[in-house]
Amino acid sequence: MAEEAAVRAQAEAVRRLKQDKADAEEIAKEVAKLLEMKAQLGTDEGKHKFVLKTPKGTRDFGPKEMAIRERAFKAIISCFKRHGAEVIDTPVFELKETLTGKYGEDSKLIYDLKDQGGELLSLRYDLTVPFARYLAMNKITNIKRYHIAKVYRRDNPAMTRGRYREFYQCDFDIAGQFDPMIPDAECLKIVHEILSDLQLGDFVIKVNDRRILDGMFAVCGVPDSKFRTICSSVDKLDKVPWEEVRSEMVGEKGLSPEAADRIGEYVQLHGGLDLIEQLLQDPKLSQNKVAKEGLGDMKLLFEYLTLFGITGKISFDLSLARGLDYYTGVIFEAVLLQQENEHVEEPVSVGSVAGGGRYDGLVGMFDPKGRKVPCVGVSIGIERIFSILEQRLEASEEKIRTTETQVLVASAQKKLLEERLKLISELWDAGIKAEMLYKKNPKLLNQLQYCEETGIPLVAIVGEQELKDGVVKLRIVATREEVNVRRESLVEEIRIRTSQC
Amino acid sequence: MAEEAAVRAQAEAVRRLKQDKADAEEIAKEVAKLLEMKAQLGTDEGKHKFVLKTPKGTRDFGPKEMAIRERAFKAIISCFKRHGAEVIDTPVFELKETLTGKYGEDSKLIYDLKDQGGELLSLRYDLTVPFARYLAMNKITNIKRYHIAKVYRRDNPAMTRGRYREFYQCDFDIAGQFDPMIPDAECLKIVHEILSDLQLGDFVIKVNDRRILDGMFAVCGVPDSKFRTICSSVDKLDKVPWEEVRSEMVGEKGLSPEAADRIGEYVQLHGGLDLIEQLLQDPKLSQNKVAKEGLGDMKLLFEYLTLFGITGKISFDLSLARGLDYYTGVIFEAVLLQQENEHVEEPVSVGSVAGGGRYDGLVGMFDPKGRKVPCVGVSIGIERIFSILEQRLEASEEKIRTTETQVLVASAQKKLLEERLKLISELWDAGIKAEMLYKKNPKLLNQLQYCEETGIPLVAIVGEQELKDGVVKLRIVATREEVNVRRESLVEEIRIRTSQC
Repeated sequence: MAEEAAVRAQAEAVRRLKQDKADAEEIAKEVAKLLEMKAQLGTDEGKHKFVLKTPKGTRDFGPKEMAIRERAFKAIISCFKRHGAEVIDTPVFELKETLTGKYGEDSKLIYDLKDQGGELLSLRYDLTVPFARYLAMNKITNIKRYHIAKVYRRDNPAMTRGRYREFYQCDFDIAGQFDPMIPDAECLKIVHEILSDLQLGDFVIKVNDRRILDGMFAVCGVPDSKFRTICSSVDKLDKVPWEEVRSEMVGEKGLSPEAADRIGEYVQLHGGLDLIEQLLQDPKLSQNKVAKEGLGDMKLLFEYLTLFGITGKISFDLSLARGLDYYTGVIFEAVLLQQENEHVEEPVSVGSVAGGGRYDGLVGMFDPKGRKVPCVGVSIGIERIFSILEQRLEASEEKIRTTETQVLVASAQKKLLEERLKLISELWDAGIKAEMLYKKNPKLLNQLQYCEETGIPLVAIVGEQELKDGVVKLRIVATREEVNVRRESLVEEIRIRTSQC
Repeated sequence: MAEEAAVRAQAEAVRRLKQDKADAEEIAKEVAKLLEMKAQLGTDEGKHKFVLKTPKGTRDFGPKEMAIRERAFKAIISCFKRHGAEVIDTPVFELKETLTGKYGEDSKLIYDLKDQGGELLSLRYDLTVPFARYLAMNKITNIKRYHIAKVYRRDNPAMTRGRYREFYQCDFDIAGQFDPMIPDAECLKIVHEILSDLQLGDFVIKVNDRRILDGMFAVCGVPDSKFRTICSSVDKLDKVPWEEVRSEMVGEKGLSPEAADRIGEYVQLHGGLDLIEQLLQDPKLSQNKVAKEGLGDMKLLFEYLTLFGITGKISFDLSLARGLDYYTGVIFEAVLLQQENEHVEEPVSVGSVAGGGRYDGLVGMFDPKGRKVPCVGVSIGIERIFSILEQRLEASEEKIRTTETQVLVASAQKKLLEERLKLISELWDAGIKAEMLYKKNPKLLNQLQYCEETGIPLVAIVGEQELKDGVVKLRIVATREEVNVRRESLVEEIRIRTSQC
C-alpha cells in the first residue's frame, strides 16, 4: 500500500513535472524569441576598442568637398529661387509618431533616439513628411517652398556610389489647390533645369502616375489588398530583371501567374504622347476609372512639357513605381544615362539623381479634421551628384580654391608683427579678405609660398622703407610684379585688382 | 518486480524532470531579465494620442524666420571668409565614445540614439569636439576653418530667450602651433566685427585664462582635486550672486570658508591692462607659475587687441570661468549689455551671444599617440541673435520679402495659359526669377494683388493684342506704369529694371 501510495505520488509528481516541462518549453520558445529580438536590437555589453572614425555610412566634408558641395547647392538654390520658392527649415528629429505609417516597408530604416525620458523621437527620414506636418500644424494651404537639409536612413551604405546613411536632400514642393498638372509640370521643368545646369551628362526623366499603376493592377486581376505590395515589387524593376520580379509576385506574394504575366506586358511599355494615346484606347485600361483619369492628366502634363520644350528628356514609363506609400498621382524619377566613372560595373544607368511626385493625402493625415492640401514636389539626390562632381574634379586636376582670401599681409624684415597687425586690421575693417602668418618673424619666402599653395592673388608687404614712405608694396603673385601703393589707396587698389574674383 | 521497475523508471523520470524544472527556472530568470531589458529599450506597443507639434525645445523656421536667419548667417560667414577661413562639415551624430569625457557635468545633456544594432551613436553637443576628432582622424595639424551647423542639448528650453534643444552654432577655429596670442587675438577681433556688424547694441567681451583661474585656486588654498568643481561654481557667477556661489563652494563642495573668501576677493576684479599689471605684482599670484604664464599671455593679448583698436569692448574679468572641461588657456564670452525688449526681466545683460577659448589638449585626446594640436576658437550663439533680430523686425513693421521673384507672368484675358507657360519658360531659361499663378484663367486683379502681397516688382502681361504685335506689356507694380516691350528685349528690360534688387 505504501508502495502504491508512493507510485501514485510519483505519478502525480510526474504529471506536475510534465506540466512544468510543457511550461518550460513554452518559456524556452519565448526565450528564443527574445534572444533573437535582443540580437536584432544589438547589445551594449560588448566592449569596443576606441575607434577614430565617423559613424557607419557617414562622412566628413573637408574644405575641398565643401567647395564642390557649395557649387552644387548654388546651382540648385538659384533654380529654386528662379521659380519663386520661399525657404523653410524644420528640426532634424520629429516625434516618432509623426513618421509612423508614412514609409511602408522602409519604416524599418528610421533612426530612433534613445528614450531618455520625455518624448519619443526619430531622425527625419525625408523632408516631405516634416513639410506636411509643418503645413498641417500651421494651417498653411498654399505655399511654394524649398528645403535643403540632411535626412537619415539606416540603410546599407554604398558610399563610393553616393549612398549614405546621412545625406542631403534638396526639396522643392508646391502645396495648394490649383488647376491640374501646372505645378506638376513645373517640378519636371526644375529637374530638367538643374540637371542641365550641373552638366552631369545625358539623363532621362521617367514619369508615371499612381492612378495608372492602380488601374493597371486592377485590370490585370490583382486583388485590391495586394496593390501596395505588388507596387513595391514593380519598384524593383530598375534593379532586377522582370523574371525575378515576377517570381517574387507569384511565389512570395501569392499573385496568380496570369495576373503577373499581364502586368509583365504593361511594364515593358515606355514612350511619349503616342503611348498615352495608345493606352487611352486600350480596351481594358480605358474602362478603368482611375487609370483613365491618370492617363488624361498624363496627356495634359505632356502638353505643358511640350510648351516648356523638354519632352526630349521625358519618358512615360509604366515600370516606374517608386516605393513611398504617400504618392497619389504623378510620380517621376530622373536617371543619369552616361557613365562618369568607367570603373563602376553597370554600363548604362548611374541611378536616380532626382525623384518626386504628387501626394494629395499626406497633409490630411496630420490634420485633426483630415482637411487635404494637395502637394507635388521634387527631391534632388545631391549625394550622387557630389560623387560625380568629385570624381570629375579629381580627373580634371583643376585646382579648386577653398578660401576667398584676396591678400596676404606680409613683412620683409623682422620685428614687424605690430605693423602687420595694424595693417591687416585696417583691411578687415574695410571689408578686404586678408590673412597673415601667425608668426612673429616669418620669412618672406614662406609667406610667398603660402600664397602659391592657397591661391591668394596678392601680397601686401610692409617693410621699414615702405613704412617711412607711407606706402605698401603690393605684389601680384601670378606675375611677380610689385608696385608701391600709397597706404590710403591700398584698399581701393586691392578691390580693383581682385574684382574679377 | 515489474512494479519495482516501474518505480525505478518513474524515479528516473522524476530526476530528469527535476533537472528540466531547474533548467526551466534558469530559463525563467533569463526571461525576466530579457523582459526587463525589453522594457528599458522601449516598446512600440503603447498607443499615444497623436499630437501635432515639433519636439520639445525645437522649432520650425518659416519663410520669414529663414529670411532673418539668412541675413545673420550672411554677416557671420562673410566675416569668417574675410579672415581666410575654409569651411568643413561633419555628421550630425558621432560615435558615443567620441563625446565621452569631454563635457564635464554637462555630459548628461547629450542625446543618445537608440541602440538598433551596430554602433552606439550620440547627437553632437557642440562643433568643437567633432572638429578635434576630424583633425586627429585626418592628421591635420594646421587649419583655419569655420563650421555652421546644428547642435543638440537635452537642456531645459527657454525658447523666448533663444535657448533651444536644437540650435545653430557658428564656429571659427584656428588649429596649429603658432606664436602666442596671435590667433587668440584674431578670434576676439572676429567676435567684435560680427557683433558690430549685426548692430545688436552695446556689448562687452569678457576675457580670462584657465591658467590664471587655476593659479588663483592654488594660491587661495583650493586642493588640486577640487579645481574643476570649484571652477564650475565660479562659472555660475553671471547668473547668481557671490553669496550663493560661496555657500555652494563651502556647503556642497567642502571648500574651507577661508579659501572661498580669498576666491571671493579675486573674482570681483575686472579691468584692462592696469589690472593685468596689478596682478603681475600680486605677491601671491606672481609666485604661481601657471598664473604668471597666463597673466603674461594676457598682457600680450591686450597689446594685440590695442593694435586692433578694440580694447574698449574687452574686459579682463576674473569671474569668467566657462563650463567646458577642454579649455586650457584664454577663455572669453561676449555679452550684450542693452535691452532690446523691455518686457524681459533682467535690466542689464541679455546673456552670452558668443564664447570660446583655447583648448590645446583636445585633439591629443583623440590621437592614438597623444600628439597635440593647439587650437583656439570662437562660437557664435546665433539663436539669441535670431531672437533679437526677430523682435526688432516685428517692432519695426518692416516688410521682409521671402522670395526674390522679379516678375509675375500674367494674362489679361482667358485662354492664355499656353502663352503664359511659353513666356515663363523663356524667362526661366534666361535666368529671370519668374512666377505665374497656377490657374488656367486667373483674373488680372488677382494677379496684380499677388504681386502687391509678395513684393514682386514687375508684371509681364500677355494679351491677344500684345501677341499679335510681338510685344509684352510690362507693368511696374510700385508706380502702376505700363510699357510695351518687344518680346526679344523683355529679358534685358527686366534685368535693367530689377538690377537694384
